[in-house]
Amino acid sequence: MIDEENVVDPSHPRYKSLMIRKKVADAGVKGMLADSAMIAHGRGEAYDYLLGEQTTPSAMEATREAVARLVRAERPILSLNGNAIALAGADFLTIASQLGCPVEINIFYRTPERMGALLGHLKLLNSKLGLDVEILGGIPDARIPGLEGPRGACQSNGIFEADVILVPLEDGDRCEALIAMGKEVLVIDLNPLSRSSRTGTVGIVDEVTRVTKNMIQMIPEKPSVTEWNNNNALQSALNHIVESLSNKFE
Amino acid sequence: MIDEENVVDPSHPRYKSLMIRKKVADAGVKGMLADSAMIAHGRGEAYDYLLGEQTTPSAMEATREAVARLVRAERPILSLNGNAIALAGADFLTIASQLGCPVEINIFYRTPERMGALLGHLKLLNSKLGLDVEILGGIPDARIPGLEGPRGACQSNGIFEADVILVPLEDGDRCEALIAMGKEVLVIDLNPLSRSSRTGTVGIVDEVTRVTKNMIQMIPEKPSVTEWNNNNALQSALNHIVESLSNKFE
Repeated sequence: MIDEENVVDPSHPRYKSLMIRKKVADAGVKGMLADSAMIAHGRGEAYDYLLGEQTTPSAMEATREAVARLVRAERPILSLNGNAIALAGADFLTIASQLGCPVEINIFYRTPERMGALLGHLKLLNSKLGLDVEILGGIPDARIPGLEGPRGACQSNGIFEADVILVPLEDGDRCEALIAMGKEVLVIDLNPLSRSSRTGTVGIVDEVTRVTKNMIQMIPEKPSVTEWNNNNALQSALNHIVESLSNKFE
Repeated sequence: MIDEENVVDPSHPRYKSLMIRKKVADAGVKGMLADSAMIAHGRGEAYDYLLGEQTTPSAMEATREAVARLVRAERPILSLNGNAIALAGADFLTIASQLGCPVEINIFYRTPERMGALLGHLKLLNSKLGLDVEILGGIPDARIPGLEGPRGACQSNGIFEADVILVPLEDGDRCEALIAMGKEVLVIDLNPLSRSSRTGTVGIVDEVTRVTKNMIQMIPEKPSVTEWNNNNALQSALNHIVESLSNKFE
């Protein structure tokens, strides 16, 4: 689909945000996304706008903490949904390669068509990047307890047995179910009030492509795990928004 | 498209928001919306969530002021885009009928297919409601000065000659161009920081279906125009968000 709305003007003050949006729109055209993926992306845009479309100091700390826990993990895994793959598929493969772990496609509205489109896209990226990251999710043989229907499907040698899991843009139910399995859950979510942000072990309140770029830089540094207070980090993110909104019209 | 994601569970704590989302998804399937419409809806959802998904007192005041100006107008008009029609098409026809004015379809990404789908949908609603509201926009014969391409197209007996215009969910450029034409521009926008909210004569920071319901109640009361300070109203909306975010995790 060639469409006026998908042409981005580089002089636009919010060019980066519009280019990110274009990735989602393009993935939608390729059948990689559910309708709700676009709406979810819009919610993210709004929160990112309020955060000033930048990585705040507290988000950088949370990213470092998440990297520390991925590096320490015995069986880390990256759980990828449609938006995560559309926005940062290549970066996630790079991170998995750095960590020596698999990725698993785990989508909320699972259809064979979407799974096929996402698997094909990741395989293409793997080959373009010269990587050999294991891509799981195509043949689920285990279930996340407490999640009904196709959204609970996972692979036993992947998400099911992982000890530390990175979940970008994850649904709140699934995040809670993974925590209930005893895993460390590392969340990337622009909404500091979402259930995923609040229930995750570490909530990174930042835009996914900025997070992946930072992670790729940090992994070789092998940072150390700290005693992490997730609520403090989320309140820092909220405070950043609050400051940007105060006395705007006075 | 029958899809798991479009089935809404009435017991969900955010049922109303999900039902509103469903209207947008359904309109997308009918070809009434551009890709970016879903993303725009998502942004709105985020702001509405921060507002507590309710009409704040300052939004109610802004709605009353907008109604007062529509009632006083010599040539009022409602400018409707895809999302406005998808979410509240029937309500806008009711409001136009109460005011005795036309509506004009004015979409950012104009294609003959989308215009046809939107015109057909409004005509169907007109007939279902037993109304005879004039629906303009199909045969543009004038231009909004300063807007290039199809987005500047309008009708001379509609938007072009109107003195007061209601623009739900309007693009910032177009809002500025309408103000530059000397019109009173009444904006409905959930983002109190958007250019539309800031440049409009009256900015209503509220969800469009709540606004239309309130307007339908208020029009028979014929409220009086006041000296309106738009910045004060927008700051009130921001303050409401700020309060809801403060000390959330302490």
